[in-house]
Amino acid sequence: MICVYNAQLDVLTKGRGTYEITEKVQKIVRESQIGEGQVTVFIQHTSASLLIFENADPTARMDLERFFRDLIPEDAEYFTHTTEGSDDMPSHIRMALTRTSECIPVIRGQICLGSWQGIFMYEHRSFSHSRSIIVSVIGERP
Amino acid sequence: MICVYNAQLDVLTKGRGTYEITEKVQKIVRESQIGEGQVTVFIQHTSASLLIFENADPTARMDLERFFRDLIPEDAEYFTHTTEGSDDMPSHIRMALTRTSECIPVIRGQICLGSWQGIFMYEHRSFSHSRSIIVSVIGERP
Amino acid sequence: MICVYNAQLDVLTKGRGTYEITEKVQKIVRESQIGEGQVTVFIQHTSASLLIFENADPTARMDLERFFRDLIPEDAEYFTHTTEGSDDMPSHIRMALTRTSECIPVIRGQICLGSWQGIFMYEHRSFSHSRSIIVSVIGERP
Repeated sequence: MICVYNAQLDVLTKGRGTYEITEKVQKIVRESQIGEGQVTVFIQHTSASLLIFENADPTARMDLERFFRDLIPEDAEYFTHTTEGSDDMPSHIRMALTRTSECIPVIRGQICLGSWQGIFMYEHRSFSHSRSIIVSVIGERP
Repeated sequence: MICVYNAQLDVLTKGRGTYEITEKVQKIVRESQIGEGQVTVFIQHTSASLLIFENADPTARMDLERFFRDLIPEDAEYFTHTTEGSDDMPSHIRMALTRTSECIPVIRGQICLGSWQGIFMYEHRSFSHSRSIIVSVIGERP
Repeated sequence: MICVYNAQLDVLTKGRGTYEITEKVQKIVRESQIGEGQVTVFIQHTSASLLIFENADPTARMDLERFFRDLIPEDAEYFTHTTEGSDDMPSHIRMALTRTSECIPVIRGQICLGSWQGIFMYEHRSFSHSRSIIVSVIGERP
């Protein structure tokens, strides 16, 4: 029988950086009891994003963060969207360059990530936020 | 009962910029009569793209546009793909950095966007074009 | 009847560049016998990615490659993730800026790409690799 199972995931952030959510997504897939199908991960924000990235060595994430810091200035002279602070417009650009949704196949009840992949929520704002992610599983429940 | 509902959305553009399609996607989800599921939005072009972005304050989109204009030169000396004009290769690079498909959960018949999110078609060419977007809804029809 | 059909696609690469997989994805959709639905293409790697891009004129892909080479240095002084060679950290950044998953509608058994679109695996490492892609089709089998 084909089923749909939707759940919400709230992630509390403590400033800019990556927060791994792989285990939380896998837990929702387990709850759905769906064996073969797909899981969509969707973030409901425009100053935070999603990224499937190297999860073994944290230096890869540090270097990516530094790359974005060099690429996207905090105080570009031309920024007009500035009322919410100097980290706001860069956060919108960072999310435009990364992901809002990812769709991952599910096989035998497992999200089929590669050996080095983790699912990360990428917080782009400097202060703490509560971020909401919708996880939607669709597929065959045995 | 699980159903699939596919529809086409045509967007006429008047040059480079963002065109909001949120209401048009929601209308197709309503027509599908699907309550719980997912909607995939897919653009059939390589010089226009999709982006879920801040939709409250248009200055955020203006600053993003300016960021891309600075990042991607119109007349890079190394460009060899130039027969269709100087805005053509930049349009391919811009679409490579943004999105071709987005998959959004549907809950109680609503696409579950966050408060500040809108779905935009991002036209990257200078002249008018008719752009085709496929909207595919899958899920439970009560 | 709604069905799920998952298959694996292995792509052998010979260094950095784009490898078209459109026909291979279409073949899996054909095998699934699904008429109306969606296909998710997912790459299980963090130093290679997916991209739906202009497939008619190869110069567009050459210019994109050159753009990334200029944007992302091979030997940034600040890179700390360097144990696997100087092409490793750039490969993670390139995949962060392109795609890990794409979801494409299927209509009458065809993946509904636009006239100029091809699905590419983008290898970002210099040496040969075997890359694994999961293709998951969901939809109505007549």
